[in-house]
Amino acid sequence: MKIEPIGIIHTPFVSKEDCPIQPLYSSDSLGRVEIFKNYEAGLKDIETFSHIYLLYLFDRAGNIELVRQTFIDDEPHGIYASRHPCRPNSVGLSVVKLIRRENNILIVEGVDMLNKTPLLDIKPYIPKYDAIISASEGWTAGKEWRPKPKGRE
Amino acid sequence: MKIEPIGIIHTPFVSKEDCPIQPLYSSDSLGRVEIFKNYEAGLKDIETFSHIYLLYLFDRAGNIELVRQTFIDDEPHGIYASRHPCRPNSVGLSVVKLIRRENNILIVEGVDMLNKTPLLDIKPYIPKYDAIISASEGWTAGKEWRPKPKGRE
Repeated sequence: MKIEPIGIIHTPFVSKEDCPIQPLYSSDSLGRVEIFKNYEAGLKDIETFSHIYLLYLFDRAGNIELVRQTFIDDEPHGIYASRHPCRPNSVGLSVVKLIRRENNILIVEGVDMLNKTPLLDIKPYIPKYDAIISASEGWTAGKEWRPKPKGRE
Repeated sequence: MKIEPIGIIHTPFVSKEDCPIQPLYSSDSLGRVEIFKNYEAGLKDIETFSHIYLLYLFDRAGNIELVRQTFIDDEPHGIYASRHPCRPNSVGLSVVKLIRRENNILIVEGVDMLNKTPLLDIKPYIPKYDAIISASEGWTAGKEWRPKPKGRE
């Protein structure tokens, strides 16, 4: 199966060391999601949503290891129990806040991916489907996270 | 970029007409997520999570239209403001409840994809990142949804 970028995500993060671990934990990090002009029509009505999923390619990830240490824990975990970038198929997923649309550009808040990351898809975040407050934290419970950003509920 | 399935999602839905619109709105629909044996090690500790994201291929989707009617609305919307399966790159995303693991098989609740759908990735659902109860419903607000399943908060 072939996957082609539909755009480019521009962020302040030029190196892996700069990158926050997850979005919305870096809520003042603004990004520009550039959708290539031939896909711009597909953005119709996206501005009615406050949050969107970005699916993108981890194009600078290192070697895949099925079990590995993560950024928040020295214990090794399975890659499918982790959001680590070095994974089979190299697809990343982040929820970001949509600030505004300017034609084929989306200004978003809470980016956590490297600058010039290839964009694969955008999906609306729909709380009825996606906000599961009863979900468990799994092995991540009690681990050290970045401080909760202001404005997040 | 090349994408290869890491497994197969087995569901009760053999035709598009059978399929519910989104997961967790069909909470009694059990599915079996089969991870190919060579990726099984990557499941370590996944059973500590109550919910997981499945990323999969819409392998039987029809023609891509960037603006189209959706299943819940006669108004046309942009494909990136919709979760419709007929989209560039054909990647689907659903949150399901993880009931139990049996070696390389995950028994999950709330499937909404066709039987034998190719699996691309699994990511843990982590409420601190992913449960955004303040998110807006966008153009979907007030539309007819399936009834809220029991046990969902």
